[in-house]
Amino acid sequence: MSILRRVFPTFAQSVCNPIVSYLNKVKYTAKMSKKTALLLIAEGSEEMEAVITTDVLRRVGIDVTVAGLTENPCVKCSRDVKICVDAKLSDAVNQKYDVVILPGGLNGSKAFANSSEVGKLLQQQEQENRLIAAICAAPTALKIHGIAKGKKITSYPAMKDQLTDYYKYLEDKVVIDGNLITSRGPATAFDFSLAIAEKLIDKQTADDAAKAMLYKN
Amino acid sequence: MSILRRVFPTFAQSVCNPIVSYLNKVKYTAKMSKKTALLLIAEGSEEMEAVITTDVLRRVGIDVTVAGLTENPCVKCSRDVKICVDAKLSDAVNQKYDVVILPGGLNGSKAFANSSEVGKLLQQQEQENRLIAAICAAPTALKIHGIAKGKKITSYPAMKDQLTDYYKYLEDKVVIDGNLITSRGPATAFDFSLAIAEKLIDKQTADDAAKAMLYKN
Repeated sequence: MSILRRVFPTFAQSVCNPIVSYLNKVKYTAKMSKKTALLLIAEGSEEMEAVITTDVLRRVGIDVTVAGLTENPCVKCSRDVKICVDAKLSDAVNQKYDVVILPGGLNGSKAFANSSEVGKLLQQQEQENRLIAAICAAPTALKIHGIAKGKKITSYPAMKDQLTDYYKYLEDKVVIDGNLITSRGPATAFDFSLAIAEKLIDKQTADDAAKAMLYKN
Repeated sequence: MSILRRVFPTFAQSVCNPIVSYLNKVKYTAKMSKKTALLLIAEGSEEMEAVITTDVLRRVGIDVTVAGLTENPCVKCSRDVKICVDAKLSDAVNQKYDVVILPGGLNGSKAFANSSEVGKLLQQQEQENRLIAAICAAPTALKIHGIAKGKKITSYPAMKDQLTDYYKYLEDKVVIDGNLITSRGPATAFDFSLAIAEKLIDKQTADDAAKAMLYKN
């Protein structure tokens, strides 16, 4: 027993140290590689589309920053739900994001279209080959800022006529063309979010999140 | 012409006054009969369930008050979305609502279960035969407050075992039993909200809202 008492700690250490070191490395790598999303909201953004997307992406482990276009810390959405932002856009743009997301809502989308700061952000995101995602009325803001000309796209049905001269318009619930993901409206926001999750992480993670939310598309 | 100028105003008045009076009455009745909802949120409430329900009910013209349990004007939900309330519960309970709604989220539901103010509100709502609606984990709070014993109910699947001794448990997306509407989770929140809309207004209005949101259940 005395030999065991002397030998075992050294033995245990020699086995355990590499395991602990490996686990720390995995943890560090996971932290380093955590995907990031910037979701913009403006007065009149569609709150379901903003919140479903934020919630689903956080469920799959994506670090989502909800950023407002103005100084206002809380933003009144299209059906008067008031959502507090995590950051102002002017501060949030100091870092890069794996995806920039525009929820819909008519007035919110107009605010995105009218913002040169949003235009600059989207153009840089496109030039650097990172993901852009827009749903409902928001694809109209992409066109205004000259994003993804000629690509396959969808939107809220009423916006179709504004987009067909600039994009290949499809009517699927979610359309993915390279680094562009677009979708149609509140009821397709789950599919939209899960498509972003699958693109940034993997299908299994997206499927697991869908199951936990009782979602069958 | 001079006869016309003298007679016409009197004639026009005799025709128009009853019409104006009727329209004012319709407007007044519509205002008086606008349905009202009280949706509670607490730290840890599921934000998708809270926001989908609020948004859908406002789309169909229901006057929704989002009320928080505490003094905090903004509530941090289960996936860190911060929603500003319209009122504190202690102020909101000064009026009656056609429906009281509890969104899910584990910690939010526990807060509802632990609040005697919520218990009192639900018990009064039940005694006065008005609608109660709960989704996901929130039906567990109904049981704690002794609401709707023996009625047909559903919930998030993981909560089933806590509820089967007190209710007739079903696994439908939405279960309606008298003045109780329950549902299962984030992805059934559209069906849940539309069921409340249909119960308080009518099927056509709910169907129109579903169509505008591109929702097919």
